[in-house]
Amino acid sequence: MTKKEVFFNGNEKQFFATDDPNKVIIRYKDVTVAFNNVKRARFEGKGALANKISALLLKYLRGQGIANHFIERTDETEQLCRRIEIIPIEVIVRNRVAGSLAARLGTAEGFKPANLIVELRYNEDVLDDPFINRDIAVALGLVTYDEIDHIISEAKKANAALCEVFHRVGIELVDVKLEFGRATDNGEIILSDEVSPDTARLWDEQTGERLDKDRFRLDLSDVVASYRNVYERLSTVISEN
Amino acid sequence: MTKKEVFFNGNEKQFFATDDPNKVIIRYKDVTVAFNNVKRARFEGKGALANKISALLLKYLRGQGIANHFIERTDETEQLCRRIEIIPIEVIVRNRVAGSLAARLGTAEGFKPANLIVELRYNEDVLDDPFINRDIAVALGLVTYDEIDHIISEAKKANAALCEVFHRVGIELVDVKLEFGRATDNGEIILSDEVSPDTARLWDEQTGERLDKDRFRLDLSDVVASYRNVYERLSTVISEN
Repeated sequence: MTKKEVFFNGNEKQFFATDDPNKVIIRYKDVTVAFNNVKRARFEGKGALANKISALLLKYLRGQGIANHFIERTDETEQLCRRIEIIPIEVIVRNRVAGSLAARLGTAEGFKPANLIVELRYNEDVLDDPFINRDIAVALGLVTYDEIDHIISEAKKANAALCEVFHRVGIELVDVKLEFGRATDNGEIILSDEVSPDTARLWDEQTGERLDKDRFRLDLSDVVASYRNVYERLSTVISEN
Repeated sequence: MTKKEVFFNGNEKQFFATDDPNKVIIRYKDVTVAFNNVKRARFEGKGALANKISALLLKYLRGQGIANHFIERTDETEQLCRRIEIIPIEVIVRNRVAGSLAARLGTAEGFKPANLIVELRYNEDVLDDPFINRDIAVALGLVTYDEIDHIISEAKKANAALCEVFHRVGIELVDVKLEFGRATDNGEIILSDEVSPDTARLWDEQTGERLDKDRFRLDLSDVVASYRNVYERLSTVISEN
């Protein structure tokens, strides 16, 4: 697979075309952004760890029957993926209420409801990613009702599988932000983007220690060490090959 | 029915106990508030018109099979209603996208999607009535899934019936905010609060003129004259008795 031009340069990831129009190479950068890109920093080695964690988890999810864009990790910081057309909806599955939602609802950080919360946001930075719902997603022409129901169903399945694998290594999955797209080869809607401590809240089950991007958001230090900790634990239960 | 003490003094309405513990008298005030109570004014005669419009519409909705708290209008500014325990959820049914939602989504004011939008907000002024969804309503313990599905279904039925009656008098129902509560006598979840130009966007079908609280929000003048116009038109198709 030959790596060709960058066709999208995101804050935390770069997307390269390849000689196959239906495949892309995604390079994970050492840049971290938060609060709709207002806060930004560079962490040496973060990109490689996020890439390796995401590769492990997407491979694991595929094995659990959750179709996604991941093909293989090609490098420390890069992975080969199916090319998709992005559906600009963030699907946030929350096992506990934390972060911005806790503030918005006035609940305690980490409030654990009896039911799962699936929150949808319209992925549009200029609008500050507004909270939407199924009706609004359809009204905006982003998806049909059948498509959004499929996406929500896949997101719940992914969350359940991720909770299970993280629990095996002593980590609680508090929430996870998932994104979906339409594969350019056959139009199938599949999980895309990444699954890593940049997109999920991960709390150590024993100590409650945060092992995710909140270390950066909340200025808790040891961002890279925490990501390495997550990678090392997951490596014990998910094989690279 | 004897009117007793005020047990809740809202911005735009006062609630009086009566000698029946399951009935209340609601007095509509001449006060108008907007933007989460930041903007406020007094309009002589507004309370009477909102009371009379709401009485007509709630009576009409009851006739259409949509259970609600209205019993009878007792006065120019007052109506007798079943007492309810408020469910703190605003159910906004939108036939077009206007106002705050248009701003939030970056759509044109009045954008008309192919599907109906039902938006839920947690009615909590101190949090600025945050946008929620079914999962969050249940997580907060406000309702069960069955209850919120019943509420959404009743809200859609009410919207359809209201669209129909307004259309008969040349008015387009753009959106309507509905609130529900549990009747204190039998626990039944019923439509409560008011349905008036204070809680619905009403556009003249011919001229597009706004006949609702947006006249106040947008400083368009003629607030009371517009409410009177709505009342007079509705009086031609809904009988007071």
